[in-house]
Amino acid sequence: MNTPPRAAILSVGDELVLGTALDTNSRTLSAALRDAGLEVVEHRTVRDELGAIESAMRELAARSDVLVSTGGLGPTDDDLTRPALNAIVDGGAPMVEDPVARADLESWFAGRGRPMASINLRQAMRPRSARIVRNPGGTAPGLHASIGACSAWFLPGPPREMVPMFESDVLPAVRPAGAPMLAKRTVQCFGIGESALAELLGERMARGRDPEVGTTASGSVVSIQVVARGPGAGARAEAEAAACAAVAQPWAFAGEGGSLAGSVLEECRAAAVMLAVAESCTGGMVGGMLTAVAGSSDAFAGGWISYSNELKERELGVPRGTLEAYGAVSRETVEAMARGAAERAHAGIAVSISGIAGPGGGSDSKPVGTVWIGVHDARRGRTAARRFEFPGGREIVRDRAAKAALQLVRWALRGEDAAMIWERA
Amino acid sequence: MNTPPRAAILSVGDELVLGTALDTNSRTLSAALRDAGLEVVEHRTVRDELGAIESAMRELAARSDVLVSTGGLGPTDDDLTRPALNAIVDGGAPMVEDPVARADLESWFAGRGRPMASINLRQAMRPRSARIVRNPGGTAPGLHASIGACSAWFLPGPPREMVPMFESDVLPAVRPAGAPMLAKRTVQCFGIGESALAELLGERMARGRDPEVGTTASGSVVSIQVVARGPGAGARAEAEAAACAAVAQPWAFAGEGGSLAGSVLEECRAAAVMLAVAESCTGGMVGGMLTAVAGSSDAFAGGWISYSNELKERELGVPRGTLEAYGAVSRETVEAMARGAAERAHAGIAVSISGIAGPGGGSDSKPVGTVWIGVHDARRGRTAARRFEFPGGREIVRDRAAKAALQLVRWALRGEDAAMIWERA
Repeated sequence: MNTPPRAAILSVGDELVLGTALDTNSRTLSAALRDAGLEVVEHRTVRDELGAIESAMRELAARSDVLVSTGGLGPTDDDLTRPALNAIVDGGAPMVEDPVARADLESWFAGRGRPMASINLRQAMRPRSARIVRNPGGTAPGLHASIGACSAWFLPGPPREMVPMFESDVLPAVRPAGAPMLAKRTVQCFGIGESALAELLGERMARGRDPEVGTTASGSVVSIQVVARGPGAGARAEAEAAACAAVAQPWAFAGEGGSLAGSVLEECRAAAVMLAVAESCTGGMVGGMLTAVAGSSDAFAGGWISYSNELKERELGVPRGTLEAYGAVSRETVEAMARGAAERAHAGIAVSISGIAGPGGGSDSKPVGTVWIGVHDARRGRTAARRFEFPGGREIVRDRAAKAALQLVRWALRGEDAAMIWERA
Repeated sequence: MNTPPRAAILSVGDELVLGTALDTNSRTLSAALRDAGLEVVEHRTVRDELGAIESAMRELAARSDVLVSTGGLGPTDDDLTRPALNAIVDGGAPMVEDPVARADLESWFAGRGRPMASINLRQAMRPRSARIVRNPGGTAPGLHASIGACSAWFLPGPPREMVPMFESDVLPAVRPAGAPMLAKRTVQCFGIGESALAELLGERMARGRDPEVGTTASGSVVSIQVVARGPGAGARAEAEAAACAAVAQPWAFAGEGGSLAGSVLEECRAAAVMLAVAESCTGGMVGGMLTAVAGSSDAFAGGWISYSNELKERELGVPRGTLEAYGAVSRETVEAMARGAAERAHAGIAVSISGIAGPGGGSDSKPVGTVWIGVHDARRGRTAARRFEFPGGREIVRDRAAKAALQLVRWALRGEDAAMIWERA
């Protein structure tokens, strides 16, 4: 088999189309199907309306080998997945009561000491040409049927019911035999724009190549996405991702699921140094990111939220003269903050941040978005600082400042000249 | 006007179909279109593949009056929304460079002191039959064109670029005249469960009432949603929300868009006290939440990320004997942390947090999720602490602990007995 099976995902529910609820099932299913070696070609979300569900099923089944649908299997009048499927596979003929589904329903209610409403019996009905997928976590059984050549699966909407059913029944049935046909790797970068990264990657991003290389940006993290297809896909994707990561040094910080904070902590551990922070405009965000990583205490000592000038002076030893002469947002202040933090926390490396997050507080010489970040490396006895001007509002300025601080720690650990690197981006 | 215009939403991006990223734009757009009086009939998500994008555009345009598409407008080879639209509206004829789009691009890069990569010029191209939708927040302009009778809008994927463009350009153009009046109000609560809140609200939640009252829960914040329809909707929704907020005291902390941190800061200002924090397991998250609010510096002094015991002892003055006898996660330790933070920051009120966020570090007597929170009120010379056992993993435990700390500050400011209130929830 040369091409992976094509999969489509259908979500059914007014609450999704109306924007009251966020559809997370599609992403969960996509990632799992992709990892199993299928090629997901489309997501579709339709209302609780018989005609819309029926045509979506027909259209998606016509263009895919596997269809996974969620939602619309409840007992009420607006749950229409079952009749829509019945119209397609059995021309709307009367459905039959499934004895296993009925027994499961009865024992579900009995096990909870609750009477079963007669309306729930609808959930034991199935089209003649479909079979039941048992649901150990709820009252709505799933359904499986063939729509033409497409293997179609219908699962309930709540993720805690849907996911176990998908994993135990759907995935083993639809997973193509043999090695995975599609492998995907991600390389996350920070401090470089998407266009500049694309220029670095050059020909690697040409369409039609296998492995295929693309980029996506989210919250200033630019990711390189590598997809390989066919035999040996895993090894080829891995090799391509490693090559891309090498090209994207020193901005590349982690693969899929990794975080900038996690990489910083790992590199601190590898260098056997403890990290401390002194945060002004980020107010604890860097500490929050670092401590989000389990086990951070062996590389993160802690720090100061030196939001007021008094705390900068009293707790971190920034000289009052420095604050008065240069201001809180200055090279001199962040360098003193970083030194103070490293000394008082007995840490090998410390990073400090002071900036104007806005919307107020800006001036001509220091507009909103101006952020100074300092790093003190106690091992080398070296302090460096750099000025940034981040675009965007308060939230974005703070987010960029926190991430830039983490990236500067990584670079300082390697002895690289952070300021120069940033310019190149 | 009897039937609302039908709207469809298209999301374009491999990262969405492959499950690497979660599509939140569809929900945002759905909710806004619905509130404007349109009927959203479908969401669809397709890969960065020309044929797939083109047929999705054609199919959705055929069945809706308004199409809003996001993504695929970047400068790289895998950004294919522009050529797909061009194929539909101009049969693939050469596109034209839009002078306004080009000028916007040039000033975007000039304003950031960065050279524009030649690849970015692609973003100034548009199909002859389309017009540009300017993007004040990024490099990708949007497009508007008619596909048959359908008014089709194409916006960039990043929400912070997409949302302002949607609100300023798309919504005014597609909003039907004389749409039914609808007013919504939200009351956010923390520290009470959804069922307990529903019991408090009682008859107000009966179906069929106008204003309609419902509840939703997200990340432990339970919100009361009030919807009024018809003439005077705004005033009636307002009055109902105020009545609900009164019933939900002291858990209710803000209306829509408000934050727990924002309410804490306001109440500190009203009481003319400065707040300080001493965070262990939350590692700076409380400080991060407080400083996310613009203008926080007049009520938030700053604090300590006393992650290690050494910092708790050396910087906050927690006696070593206390740490040895009771442990870092104890009433005695958080009370000493809160007193130390208030004294050293010269603050009127301080909150401290120490807990076991997991996954490691739990024991039989202090399982993962055990968190002590202390509040020291320097004005009253009173220190109080309370133990919590939060369910869930590291992320949830830390989130709940940070929010509980803020809620306890609010209650301490009013002199309410926090422990008792929490029990009632």
